[in-house]
Order: sequence, then C-alpha cells, then structure tokens
Amino acid sequence: MAIPDKTAFENAYKCVSPFVHNTPVLTSHLLDDLSGTSIYFKCENFQKMGAFKMRGAVNAISHLSEAQKKSGVVTHSSGNFAQALSLAAKNLGVKAYIVMPSNAPKVKREAVEAYGGIITTSMPTLESREEEATKIVKKTKATFIHPSNDINVILGQGTAAYELLQKYPDLDCIFTPVGGGGLIAGTALAVHYFSNKCKTIGGEPANADDAYRSLKSGKIEFNETAITIADGLRTHLGDKNFPIIKELVSEIITISEVEIVAAMRLLWERLKIVVEPSSAVPFAALLKERQRFKNQKIGIVISGGNVDLSNLPF
Amino acid sequence: MAIPDKTAFENAYKCVSPFVHNTPVLTSHLLDDLSGTSIYFKCENFQKMGAFKMRGAVNAISHLSEAQKKSGVVTHSSGNFAQALSLAAKNLGVKAYIVMPSNAPKVKREAVEAYGGIITTSMPTLESREEEATKIVKKTKATFIHPSNDINVILGQGTAAYELLQKYPDLDCIFTPVGGGGLIAGTALAVHYFSNKCKTIGGEPANADDAYRSLKSGKIEFNETAITIADGLRTHLGDKNFPIIKELVSEIITISEVEIVAAMRLLWERLKIVVEPSSAVPFAALLKERQRFKNQKIGIVISGGNVDLSNLPF
Repeated sequence: MAIPDKTAFENAYKCVSPFVHNTPVLTSHLLDDLSGTSIYFKCENFQKMGAFKMRGAVNAISHLSEAQKKSGVVTHSSGNFAQALSLAAKNLGVKAYIVMPSNAPKVKREAVEAYGGIITTSMPTLESREEEATKIVKKTKATFIHPSNDINVILGQGTAAYELLQKYPDLDCIFTPVGGGGLIAGTALAVHYFSNKCKTIGGEPANADDAYRSLKSGKIEFNETAITIADGLRTHLGDKNFPIIKELVSEIITISEVEIVAAMRLLWERLKIVVEPSSAVPFAALLKERQRFKNQKIGIVISGGNVDLSNLPF
Repeated sequence: MAIPDKTAFENAYKCVSPFVHNTPVLTSHLLDDLSGTSIYFKCENFQKMGAFKMRGAVNAISHLSEAQKKSGVVTHSSGNFAQALSLAAKNLGVKAYIVMPSNAPKVKREAVEAYGGIITTSMPTLESREEEATKIVKKTKATFIHPSNDINVILGQGTAAYELLQKYPDLDCIFTPVGGGGLIAGTALAVHYFSNKCKTIGGEPANADDAYRSLKSGKIEFNETAITIADGLRTHLGDKNFPIIKELVSEIITISEVEIVAAMRLLWERLKIVVEPSSAVPFAALLKERQRFKNQKIGIVISGGNVDLSNLPF
C-alpha cells in the first residue's frame, strides 16, 4: 500500500485545524527529574469531546463528496470515536448514525445523544455491531467510517504530533499509545514528514500486545484476550495502518497493568490533569525504559481524558 | 489600616513573577452553557507546588531585609503554605522552619522535606503549633510568616488575579474561595487597581461561614466548628486582610457540601483538571447564583490541585 504523501498530510491539517483545539503542551520538572529526560506532554485530554479522536473524525468527514455528506456517516463504537464522529458530523452539518452495544455505559450514550448522534443499539458482540452498521449503510447510503483503519482518520490523528513538532521541532522521540493503530500511524507520518531525527515509539499494554507481536512477526496479530484497564487499547491493527506502522514506527514497548496505574497516578498527581488509563501507557513505557532515553527530548501524546470518576483504580 | 497602594502591588508582581508560572486560563463551552456566563478559569493548580500559595510566600520572603533573610523564615501549617514557604525559601536561598502538627499527612511532610523545609513536629493543636513557632523564632531569629494575615502575602496572592485581568481586562466579576482571607484580599486589591467595573466575590463553605458572617457584622467572626471537605477554607480572617475585604469585596456566597462536591466533579469531568475541593467552592457559588450573573464574563481562581487521590469524594 502506498503511504500518503506530505501534501495529503498538509491537506488533512487544513481540514482539521478549524474544528479542533491546538491543545496545550505541559511540562513538569519533577517528571523530568524522575525520567531523566525532558518530556513535552501534548494534552489531547483538553481536545473537544476530550480525546484526539475528534481530529480523525473531522478529517474523514471533510474528505467525503457532497453527495456522501448528504447521506451521512455511520460507525460502531462504545467509546471515544462514537462521540468524536457525532460531534464532528454536527460541526460539519452531516448526520451521524452510531451503533452502540447494549452494554455501553449510559454516560457514553448520553454524550453521543448530546452531540446529535443517532443511536442504534446492537447486541454486545462485534458481529452484531457490524451487522447493524451494514443495515444502516444499506438503508441510508451513509458512509461507514472506521475508528482507526481509514487513511483519512489516520492522517487526522497525526495532526496532534504535527502541532507538537511545530512547537518543538527538535524532539528525539514521540511516544503514543497503541490500540487500533490510527494514532500511532498518523504520528509516524507526521514524524516522517516534519522531523529529521525524531523516532515514533508505541506503548502497549502487555495484556493486549497484538501490535508488539505484529511488529515482530511482520503480519497483523490478534489478542485472544485483552484484559487491560486501558480500555481504548484492546483492539487490533488494520490493513490500512499496519503498513505505515511497520515501515515508520521504531519500536513498541509493552507495559504491565501495575505500571499503567502507577503512571496514570503520577500524571494526575504531578501534572494535575485528568487522563484516561490509555494515556498513561506511553508515559509508563518511557519510565520503564528511561535508561535508554536519558537526556533526550521526548514528546508524549496524552490521548484523552474521558474517564469514569466513580470507578478509578486508586 | 491603610490599604496598600498600586505601586506596592506592582512591586509585588515584580518580585513574584520570576519565581512563579503565569498559569494558563481554561474555558469550556459546556460549563459556559451550564452557567449562562462566560467563565475564565485561572488555573493555579498548575502553579509551582500546586497552589497559588507560592505567590504570597515568594513576595513575603522577597520583602525581608538581608539580615532577616540570613536568619530564615518560620511558619506553622499542615497544608499548602508549608510547601509554598519551603519552596519559595529554597528558590530565594533562605532557610525555612516549618512547624507541622503530628497528625499531618505523611505525603505533606515528605513534600516539605523535598523542598528543603526544616520540620518541627508539634501537638495537633493551634496552641502547640504557635508555641513551637515562637520557640524557633527565639532560638533562630527567623521571621514568622503568617499564611494569610500578612500584607506581603496578600499582595503576592493577588498577582494571580492581576495576570487574569491583564489577559481579560473586561471581566465583570472574579470569584475566589475564602479561607484565611489572603487570596480574596489580594484579588480585591488587583481588581481595585487594574479594573474599572469588575467585582470581587467570595465563595465559602456554609459549614465554615465565618467570613460571610464577618462581612455582615463588620467584625471578624469565628467558626465554632468547620466540618467541610474544603480543608483549605476552615480558617478565619485576620486583622490585616479583613479591612481590605470589608472595603473591596462585594459579597460572599455560601455553599453546601453537596454543592462543593458536585462542582468539583464537574471541573474534573469537563475541564479534565485535578483541583482541590477548595477550588470548587467559587465555581459552586457561581452555579448557585447563576441567574444573577447571566451573560457576564466571570473569572474564577482555581486555587490548587493538591488532593489525596486515595480519598476522593466520588
């Protein structure tokens, strides 16, 4: 598969930037001392709807034809992409059909509704979700948008790292979490086109290490189980993002559940920000391997801050 | 008592600004919609040592003579001011003696030690704390710095509102929490000197409403009990800050414990920031009286983010 060129990336940024925040970058002397590096946290928890997913959703919808836009978009998700696609569609004047499993948290359904998403409830299995989405496509001619395995989504997600590199062009590495692969693939593209020396590195829960194994074996691997607190990272890679990851990502570091929670707590206590468990994974990866990154300038993409305060791990 | 003049305030800012962050101001469409106002949150939870108290501590130490600086400073505190004075003293090359009650949380003692504060442990009563502090003053000739009832501390605390007004000169009101009175008195001075139309308004827990009653009666009132989750707001006003508050604060709004926790949760969920219960009090005050402030531009000083994650109210 051809990797999107620099112009495609720049076009994506033009589409995305009017609809998203150029989120702040936070630093902490204490976390720098602790890691032996200089860390620049790109805070997508402050993004609209609370996560980087807004970027990919905006870019995907922006690239539809006028006829496609009239028929709307559809996705199935119980998480951030459901909210992202709903809000992006609302902002772009497009209908969004969202298939949510019957066991999706009430608070997530309400958020999708608040953004104007039209919800269809499926059984809590991937088969049922896909089946309902297919029915909607047939009935409405809406365009299906995949949360991570879609080139325009990938390019959109990469705009967070693009903004980070514009502000700090001399980063040695950018760390991101790895779930479905959209964020890390987009980040790797940004690094590839807009930095000379920077590396893209993934952090992944050891309990859902499909991407780590995929990079080793050279083909997309799957998780038999994916029991991790980092609920955004339970999914596997896809045929659109894996070729980019294979070519442009330097390494993926796996992290235990205990390390994820400890890193999450450090971010809350020291940066004073609310972040999802998934966001703590790349920081945990850096802490684990900090000897190898000593004195380097490290960017970390904090992926989001949508967390259930009634169900915290500490 | 003479109220400090504008030059004193500007001098305070010159002393304080090199040693503190000009903290970011956050906004939220959702919280604006909810309140019917436009809110500008001045985020002192991102301040050094995690609270606005750093500002007053720096200003107080800066105004000592060289001889006084050589002998060091002393305070008694189990909270943020212990950390603030320790860190400010460290940055200014001065010794800090901190009297902490024997029941102070271990994490707070460790933070003071990390900043180089020299801890003396007292019994957990105000009498014992004062007695130990007096002993240290006699022995070391260190200067006692009160956490809130000290003109230079008051001027220092006011620099947060000064920064906010420099960025948003047309605010209609600035809300702050009211505890010992240092922050609201300093804020009222900033508003008095650097705004034409802005009002200073306090939020106070109904369970520790001494300042509310003091403003009504015209003399300093005390709390018989002060059982509130907003642990920074249990103290009473002093003879240095009360005259300023009496002259320049428009009103104080009291808030129930349930309202404080609900407002705190909203800030965590919607702004994605970690704030202390005390920080939620002025926001809760605005929400309670939102009809009266409809369509106004409101500044809110988020006082700090030092909270025990193992002991959250949700």
